[in-house]
Amino acid sequence: MRASVFIGTSVDGFIARRDDRLDFLPPGGGEPHGYDEFIASVDALVIGRKTFEVVLAFPEWPYGKKLVVVLSSKQLDFSAIRGGIVEQMAGTPEEVVAKLSARGLKHIYVDGGITVQRFLRAGLIQRLIITRVPVLIGEGIPLFGAMPRDIKLRHIATQSYPSGLVKTEYEVITCVLK
Amino acid sequence: MRASVFIGTSVDGFIARRDDRLDFLPPGGGEPHGYDEFIASVDALVIGRKTFEVVLAFPEWPYGKKLVVVLSSKQLDFSAIRGGIVEQMAGTPEEVVAKLSARGLKHIYVDGGITVQRFLRAGLIQRLIITRVPVLIGEGIPLFGAMPRDIKLRHIATQSYPSGLVKTEYEVITCVLK
Repeated sequence: MRASVFIGTSVDGFIARRDDRLDFLPPGGGEPHGYDEFIASVDALVIGRKTFEVVLAFPEWPYGKKLVVVLSSKQLDFSAIRGGIVEQMAGTPEEVVAKLSARGLKHIYVDGGITVQRFLRAGLIQRLIITRVPVLIGEGIPLFGAMPRDIKLRHIATQSYPSGLVKTEYEVITCVLK
Repeated sequence: MRASVFIGTSVDGFIARRDDRLDFLPPGGGEPHGYDEFIASVDALVIGRKTFEVVLAFPEWPYGKKLVVVLSSKQLDFSAIRGGIVEQMAGTPEEVVAKLSARGLKHIYVDGGITVQRFLRAGLIQRLIITRVPVLIGEGIPLFGAMPRDIKLRHIATQSYPSGLVKTEYEVITCVLK
């Protein structure tokens, strides 16, 4: 199974403000930059509890009929979701990947700061697609965090858009210990 | 006078490791990505004391006969520099820009984490040229820091290179209070 990240950040690397606001991102995701094509390619999203709560406050559930797996060890209330397919899972990134893989899923979309960092640290992300929004916000929730070691990336493609978005796609180079 | 930044960072936004090491950057600056053309366009570099000390430890003074202004309120020892043109200056970014501007300088290259952040916060950087090296290092000295307010950028150009470097050039949008 493959796991990808598709995320927008400020040029200084934040995915949200301290209070979870996303007002510095262009409304509606900005001009089309491949999100629809990307989401069509995944079998499920895997997000953390915090991202789930942010998304739940959106006017509409944004993931349609796509399976959304929310990682949390505490019982979550899904009763407010209208029309979405959501389930809860707990465990390490390895366990989550093993469970979803056993169910035949081929490609998951890992989203949310903490969850992305956990999966990256576990070596379970294969693709990073980062779209930089042309603004510095100074502080907020960072996309990246501490890592046990350097993670080398292979540049796949970069594209810029008239509104100033710059999307770069990297493959994570996985080093196998012998 | 214009001030520009031309700097390399990891994909997670670090310009050096915690101990100032630059080993994650490609040796010799990596494949040519416009540094020579950029440095030829500036009248002087403005760097902080810490960057000066890192550069002083390089096998060779890297700035040739280009004027290098080192910002420090403490007296610095320039006796170890062979062949470089270096002077010390103290003061706020505004004072430094005013002094250099009065001497007829038209374009300065502001370098080093703390100095870049001070000049950005003061609204005195017009151009940011950031080259992302395809690696995550997890921790280190960040390029960006806290800002009193959002700083909007205008995307000018992005170029990727076969080795995986991605260079993006932004203009800082200066908002004048009325």
